[in-house]
Amino acid sequence: MAIRVGIIGYGNLARGVESEIRRNPDMKLCGVFTRRDPASLTIKTEGVPVYNVDKLPELTNDFDIMVICGGSATDLPKQTKEYAKLYNVIDSFDTHANIPQHFEAVDASAKAANKTALISCGWDPGMFSLNRLYANCILPEGNDYTFWGKGVSQGHSDAIRRVAGVKNGKQYTIPVDSALEAVRSGSNPELTTRQKHTRECFIVAEEGADLAAIEKEIKEMPNYFADYDTTVHFISEEEFNRDHARLNHGGFVFRTGTTGFDGENKHVIEYNLKLDSNPEFTASVLLCYARAVVRLNEMGQTGCKTVFDIAPAMLSPLSGEELRAHLL
Amino acid sequence: MAIRVGIIGYGNLARGVESEIRRNPDMKLCGVFTRRDPASLTIKTEGVPVYNVDKLPELTNDFDIMVICGGSATDLPKQTKEYAKLYNVIDSFDTHANIPQHFEAVDASAKAANKTALISCGWDPGMFSLNRLYANCILPEGNDYTFWGKGVSQGHSDAIRRVAGVKNGKQYTIPVDSALEAVRSGSNPELTTRQKHTRECFIVAEEGADLAAIEKEIKEMPNYFADYDTTVHFISEEEFNRDHARLNHGGFVFRTGTTGFDGENKHVIEYNLKLDSNPEFTASVLLCYARAVVRLNEMGQTGCKTVFDIAPAMLSPLSGEELRAHLL
Repeated sequence: MAIRVGIIGYGNLARGVESEIRRNPDMKLCGVFTRRDPASLTIKTEGVPVYNVDKLPELTNDFDIMVICGGSATDLPKQTKEYAKLYNVIDSFDTHANIPQHFEAVDASAKAANKTALISCGWDPGMFSLNRLYANCILPEGNDYTFWGKGVSQGHSDAIRRVAGVKNGKQYTIPVDSALEAVRSGSNPELTTRQKHTRECFIVAEEGADLAAIEKEIKEMPNYFADYDTTVHFISEEEFNRDHARLNHGGFVFRTGTTGFDGENKHVIEYNLKLDSNPEFTASVLLCYARAVVRLNEMGQTGCKTVFDIAPAMLSPLSGEELRAHLL
Repeated sequence: MAIRVGIIGYGNLARGVESEIRRNPDMKLCGVFTRRDPASLTIKTEGVPVYNVDKLPELTNDFDIMVICGGSATDLPKQTKEYAKLYNVIDSFDTHANIPQHFEAVDASAKAANKTALISCGWDPGMFSLNRLYANCILPEGNDYTFWGKGVSQGHSDAIRRVAGVKNGKQYTIPVDSALEAVRSGSNPELTTRQKHTRECFIVAEEGADLAAIEKEIKEMPNYFADYDTTVHFISEEEFNRDHARLNHGGFVFRTGTTGFDGENKHVIEYNLKLDSNPEFTASVLLCYARAVVRLNEMGQTGCKTVFDIAPAMLSPLSGEELRAHLL
């Protein structure tokens, strides 16, 4: 029987889950939950009901797992621990500093209800974290490097859209090629924030806005831009809509380290992603971990997990025999 | 208490285990086992006893795990299943086609003895297999590509050393840059054997040998060289010893795939390794999995495992809390 999946929320990530569930024949989308009036929401999959989140307590027999697609700032800290009392759940909570407290809250809820939860899943945190962990275990003596991009940073795009005179805007984070090459060479460079990434902004200004003032305000914005070399381009609304509609992203995780009796041998481990659609890729990661969460719950392993706790074979629809024969 | 590790064999891989165990403070090398006269073997670590393999049945209380460092062709198919009756064991069995039967034999031995075994660990099979599995689970619609090198192929080096007139020789497998770039572009190229890798041989010829005949025999050798563009260099013994002593290797694993309601978004997942020392890196992977094997056995999980069955957190000396706080 197919795994019955529900989606909570209907933003970019949720729509990614909706599209990617079709690529997993052992899964079935059985409902979308919204805080809005369900009648106001038309989803892309025919025949799948839309419910208000108020209905969640009544439908616990109809779903094997809920993919919670809220934001990390305010939604997920409330939603995941709440819904883990009713369902197996998975989220993409990505506020790194608050992961330990989110974990504890979700763990308590899930354990009390005999449910299984998995938090902070996606590519960072998620696949990047996994690669940091594997590489650190393999090379105990070494250095870690993470680069993001080239890709759209939602947080930075939001920040530039709040500047007076900005009608629309998008920010790309770009890793510096020479920094990537220095890391790849195994030379263990010490890199400042400015040396690792540049930031490029594409802005549609309001008519009559002071472009020089906008550019200055962006470039001097603390935390977001002041520590980076930032380029600001003013473009037309037409060009913006044509060339900057996508949510592409990606990045690089490196560990460089040494082995040998005298530390004489160098090694470079690199993992990198080039993604046309950040939300659809994140959704794809969530779905294979959703499969593992349902299996763990069936095995009686309840409480909160992260990608670190999941044996890779649990993610696959294939059997152990098939995996050993074809992928090992 | 430190994990008490034994090494069976004392070739390149075993010496790698010996050097890398020093980078894992929770592990201790407690003995090396050889088929030769132990008095004939001097190892690099002071105070560690060398035993004949005949002593293995007597020392089962003195070791938590044996790292079996024999060759895949004839040693490991016998050794791992035999020693899994006495110890928790780990090996780097790399004959892909025979993994299923090796797994079954080791699983039966280990289960009967309440021991835990892990086979086919290293980087390929091993980390490359893991990356193939993760990427296949994330992107169910896509294509896999594996490239090896630049690095020394032991099998091909052995083959050229068997050619009449060859005194010494080393073969490098080199991935073709244009093929790597075609894969990275997400264009899903179909690549022939010849398009993916070239082979480069460095030969020290016997005095008076027919160089043209050697080159012809190598380039036409079926399976090993006939399907590749091969370059043969004749060099002096001095140059050979100076420039070709290392056992460097590496490679690339890619999965490219699509997402979206209409498959309109492309994604590229890349994992690559650049290794100065193939045996020391392989040993480093074996050691963190050895930690996991000992833990699994303490938890009562016996029988044969592969890297697919091991939750990543089990590889680390850090606690779950530490991992979530620092690596997620």
